[in-house]
This record gives sequence, C-alpha cells and structure tokens, in this order.
Amino acid sequence: MSNPSLLILPGDGIGPEVMAEVRKVIDWFGTRGLTFDVSEDLVGGAAYDAHGTPLTDATMAKAQEVDAVLLGAVGGPKYDVLDFSVKPERGLLRLRKEMDLYANLRPAQCFDALADFSSLKKDVVAGLDIMIVRELTSGIYFGEPRGIIEEGNERVGINTQRYTESEIDRVARSAFELAMRRNKKLCSMEKANVMESGVLWREVVTEVGKDYPEVALSHMYADAGAMQLCRWPKQFDVIVTDNLFGDLLSDAAAMLTGSLGMLPSASLGAPMANGRPKALYEPVHGSAPDIAGQGKANPIACILSFAMALRYSFDQGDEATRVEKAVEKVLADGVRTADLLGEEGVTPVSTSEMGDAIVKAL
Amino acid sequence: MSNPSLLILPGDGIGPEVMAEVRKVIDWFGTRGLTFDVSEDLVGGAAYDAHGTPLTDATMAKAQEVDAVLLGAVGGPKYDVLDFSVKPERGLLRLRKEMDLYANLRPAQCFDALADFSSLKKDVVAGLDIMIVRELTSGIYFGEPRGIIEEGNERVGINTQRYTESEIDRVARSAFELAMRRNKKLCSMEKANVMESGVLWREVVTEVGKDYPEVALSHMYADAGAMQLCRWPKQFDVIVTDNLFGDLLSDAAAMLTGSLGMLPSASLGAPMANGRPKALYEPVHGSAPDIAGQGKANPIACILSFAMALRYSFDQGDEATRVEKAVEKVLADGVRTADLLGEEGVTPVSTSEMGDAIVKAL
Ligand SMILES: CC(C)[C@H](C(=O)O)[C@@H](O)C(=O)O
Ligand SMILES: CC(C)[C@H](C(=O)O)[C@@H](O)C(=O)O
Repeated sequence: MSNPSLLILPGDGIGPEVMAEVRKVIDWFGTRGLTFDVSEDLVGGAAYDAHGTPLTDATMAKAQEVDAVLLGAVGGPKYDVLDFSVKPERGLLRLRKEMDLYANLRPAQCFDALADFSSLKKDVVAGLDIMIVRELTSGIYFGEPRGIIEEGNERVGINTQRYTESEIDRVARSAFELAMRRNKKLCSMEKANVMESGVLWREVVTEVGKDYPEVALSHMYADAGAMQLCRWPKQFDVIVTDNLFGDLLSDAAAMLTGSLGMLPSASLGAPMANGRPKALYEPVHGSAPDIAGQGKANPIACILSFAMALRYSFDQGDEATRVEKAVEKVLADGVRTADLLGEEGVTPVSTSEMGDAIVKAL
Repeated sequence: MSNPSLLILPGDGIGPEVMAEVRKVIDWFGTRGLTFDVSEDLVGGAAYDAHGTPLTDATMAKAQEVDAVLLGAVGGPKYDVLDFSVKPERGLLRLRKEMDLYANLRPAQCFDALADFSSLKKDVVAGLDIMIVRELTSGIYFGEPRGIIEEGNERVGINTQRYTESEIDRVARSAFELAMRRNKKLCSMEKANVMESGVLWREVVTEVGKDYPEVALSHMYADAGAMQLCRWPKQFDVIVTDNLFGDLLSDAAAMLTGSLGMLPSASLGAPMANGRPKALYEPVHGSAPDIAGQGKANPIACILSFAMALRYSFDQGDEATRVEKAVEKVLADGVRTADLLGEEGVTPVSTSEMGDAIVKAL
C-alpha cells in the first residue's frame, strides 16, 4: 500500500512559519514508520505573487487527488488593493467549493493551562469544549447573482444567500453524527424570524433530527446565539449554522476560549473512492501579517490541525491523541509563545522552539 | 404650540410590563410641565391576536404622524407556527422600513454598579462605552428576490443582500457625526474579503470619511470584529456596520457589558417637516417570554429608551441626563430587579418597584 498523501499549502503571513513546525511533527512520525507523501504548493497571496492567481488549476487538481490538504493561512494588507476576483481569500474559497468541503468543524476549546488568557471569567470558560459545525460551500459566500452593478445613477452591491434542502440536510447530518459521539446536544442557529433561508434551514434540521432521536435538538436565532456564546458558552455541545453566521460565531467562540492560537479546524466533504473524506485542515487563526516573519507565531493550532488530519483522514486516532497530549504537556510545562505571555514563571519561546518542544514531548 | 406626540407600542412578552413603568416616568414629566400626547397601540403578536396582522395600516399611519414611537418588544414561541409573512417580527420590520429608520444607534455601555454581571473580566468591561450604528432598512433583511422556491426536486431558501451607495452613504454619515461628538474613532465592519456588497460598503465609507478628516477611520472584517469585541471591546468608540452584522455584533456587545436589561436603542430616519427625525426607540433586550407577566422584568432599558427619545427627538438633553442619572442613583443604591441579582446586600425588587424607585430618584 502506498503512503497516505498530504498537500501542504503554507499560504501567507505566519502560514509558512507555523507550517515549518508541522513538518517537524510529520518527520517525527516518519522516523516511527508512519510516512506521508508530502507535497507543497502555493495558495493565496503567495500564489498570486508567483502566478497572478490565488490558486492555480494545477494546485487545485493536486488538492483533489491527495488524501488531505493542510493549509496555513491566507491574506494580508499587501493584497487589499487587488481586485476581488484575485484576492488571496479566493484561493481558499475555491478549494472549499471545488473539493465540496461542506462541513467545517471548529472546536472551541479552552486549554486548562490557558484559561487565564480568556477575556471571560475563568469559571465561564474553564473546561469549555464545544464544536461548531459551519456549512462551508454555500450560502452568501457563493450564491448568485453577486457583484457590484450600476443602477440608475449609483452602484449597488449584491450578494445572494441561497440554501437548498440537500445542502442543509448533509451538513445537519454531519452535526448530528458528531453530537452522537459527544454529549448528544445540538443547537442550530439561523435567523428564521427574518430570513426565509433560515426558515428552510430550521425545517430541514428539524426533519433530519427525526433520524437522531437521542440527540436533544434546539434552535436559536443567531443574534441570541452570539449573546449566549458570550454569556455562558458551556450551555452548548455542538452548534450547527450556515456559512456566514458560522464565520462570525466560530471566531467569537474561538476568541472567548482565550486559546485562539491553539485552535485547529477540519473541513470535510464526501468520501472519496478510498473511503477517506475529502478534507482540508487549517488553523482557525488568520495570517497575522503584523507578526509574520518574526518567530513569534504560535504553531500549535496548525500542529493540532495536523492531529485532526490524523484522526479524520488517516484513521490514526491514537496518534492524534498522542500529538494532543504532547501539546498539553508542553503547555503544562510552561512553554509559551509570545501570544501566550503574561503569566508569571513562563518561558517565552520562538515558533521554532515551540515546535521542537512538542516534538520532544512526542 | 401643541405637545410633542408619542406613540407607545408595548408589543409582546415583557413589553407591556416594562412600558407601564415608562408611563410613570412620562407622567412624572407631565406633572413638571413637560407633557406628551401619548397614544398606545398594538404591534407584533399582540396585533396579530387582535387583527390577524402584526401591524395594521392604521397603526402604521399613526407611527408616521407622531414625533416618536416607543416600542417594547415583539415575538414569542406562541407565534413560531405562524406563516413568515405575519410573524410578530414583520410588524417591527415594517415600521423600520416604512419610516425609513436607517440608523440604529445601539450603545453598549457597562454600568459601573453592574460590571460584575458581565461574563467578561472586570477590567475588560468596566467603563466600557461604545456605540454601534447598525444600518436598519436594507441589506439581507429586505433585499429581493427572497423566499422559498421549488427547484428540481427540492426547495431552495433565498435571501438577497443588497446595498446601494446612497444607503451606505447616509448611515456612514450618521456614524461619522456621532464619532465627532464622541472620541472621533470609527470602525467599519463588513466582509469585503468575501462579499462584493462589503467591497462597496468599504469604498463608500472610505469616501464619506474624506468629509470627516478628524475622525480616525478603520476597517475590520466582521468576523475579526466579533473577535475583537470579545477580546478587548474598549478599543472601539463608534462601530458602523450593516443590518445583519449589526444584529449579531450589537447583541454580542450588549451581552458582554453585563447590562443587557439596561440597554436602550434609537432608530432614526430623515428629518420630518418639523425638523425632528423620524424615530423609534426600543430596548435592546427581547420579549423574554419565559419571565413575562411575573413582575421580574427590568424596565430600565425601556426607560432609558425614553431618555434617548428625550435627547434625539425632543431636544431635551438635560432631561434625558436627569433620567439617566436617576437610573444610576437607583443602581448605586443597590436596587435590583431579578435579572441583576447575585451580589450580596442588594434589594430584589419587582418591575413596578423599580419603576417607582426611578420616579422617586427623579
Ligand atoms: C479568510 C476568509 C475567506 C475566511 C472566511 O471568511 O471563511 C476566514 O475568515 C475563515 O473563517 O476561514
Ligand atoms: C426582532 C428581530 C426582528 C430584530 C432583528 O433581527 O433586527 C431584533 O433581533 C433586533 O435586533 O432588533
């Protein structure tokens, strides 16, 4: 049997730095007999700089072939002036859309050693462990018509939110499946009180729920959801929501944990011929251009994204846990990158030293 | 000169209870020579129950004529089964749209006496005072086409985000004007990295900014905005954003202050013939059906909404301040409704007792 294949797309900003540390972890597994066929390519602004497009067709084709894609981050102020169609983000969005990665799993988890970093009170976040399932291939991110048109004497900006029953159905199923493996509680969020697409969303999720009678399903308007996440996030187990709400809510939830530099994500699609789901893994944090190239970035979110790949793409749940435990150990030992400073008695380390410490803990 | 006119629409849930307390404050001003012509009518579920519509044409006409509308809250689980077109929320949305109330001012303020109620750490919220200006008459709330259609074998839910240059221009001006009277900092939030309507939003806000060179203008993606609100809200002074982002972000910000039951809002349109802006005032909190009718509701948000009416509609800034000071005094005295319990040494009071205490403090 050939080795599992992995396409690495470091992207922009701190992407390349954190990815270099993931490489160390991958290499460590190689020395232990778990070898990946790793290829690397460009995405986002880096791809634009080299090829005039944020994702070449060749890279897109490669992404479709490999067992999993691992992405760093895209975007940066340098690219703000670019036309919408070639913005770094379009590269990432093309990957999501063409690989049809409809279920974006975003754990919002508070690491014990870091509970003090949250802007929330410790009792509100300590032990927090929720999973946000965000629909990732439809909604207002991709709906047509879209664009800026002339109308009368002025311009009009248009985007379309569009959800089909089957699009809602499949992501709802992913969320229910996850809830079954967790605490059997699912909260679906939309604005059914003002948007018809939200009405359909609620109906379909309710319908899918009949196949999962053990899961306690609730519904919340997304604005109330934002409030409740800020008030008492522990009331949630799994949350399922659309692409745009998921973007805001999962970012807010991630920040609330105080562990933003720590949070991985998985974007999963339908099973491929080999039974593995189409999959892309990436940290929740962005490209952080302000600290790029300074060795200050925290590589943990990206390393934990690789751990998610081990679990969801490569059936290596034990090895995934091994990586997660190594991260916990390093944190418990007081090893901290610059984003996590502020406590007494901690050792500030560089991106690369953090990677080394994790490999050592493995 | 005739008395200024006020249309009171208590609405659903705790709406009528909190409005009864506002009446006491209005009556108090009457005894002091500041008399309002007050009329009262139905909106939301209450209007549906009586007339089969969440807002009759007659009420709509009245709202267009008065100097200001004061609304309690709309909605409740009882109405969840209603068809979209007659949901309680449609009554409120019709008022906003037909009165063309494009600038929704939502202060997120942390009351000193209540800083402990926030789920955020005290130093993160104490003294917080930001103003969110939400566009209220356009965007995905009102854009066409919309609805649930049949396509192939399935249903598709559709909503349209649509912003014209002039719609963005006018709400941006409101926000810059406010920033000029505050700390001269404005942050505009959209998703220009994924939505063309966000690209236009950013362009127009930037353009309007040229007329306000003293205001420091910044732009943030709405997901990053949600994060930053959760991390360090004091970095903001005024925030301007669209209808849907404003819905989520202002609710999150309100909850973060710990003072949700305290927060008023003003929705303002163009000046009428008498120079006063079209205006509707309402608390940020919802109809809270779970506690309706139990005398537990906190009437302060609604009373402070009336104070905003005094300031923005009736040119009674000093009297508005008087009401705000009375509220502060009552809180400083330890008077608390049920939503604000939890501290030692506070007196739990009913909705009505809170209203009485505020009138007494006046
Ligand atoms: C980079 C951007 C296109 C992206 C999004 O909006 O989805 C990011 O914010 C995310 O959440 O993954
Ligand atoms: C009640 C509802 C229609 C409304 C909205 O979504 O705008 C509410 O959430 C608000 O924020 O005023």
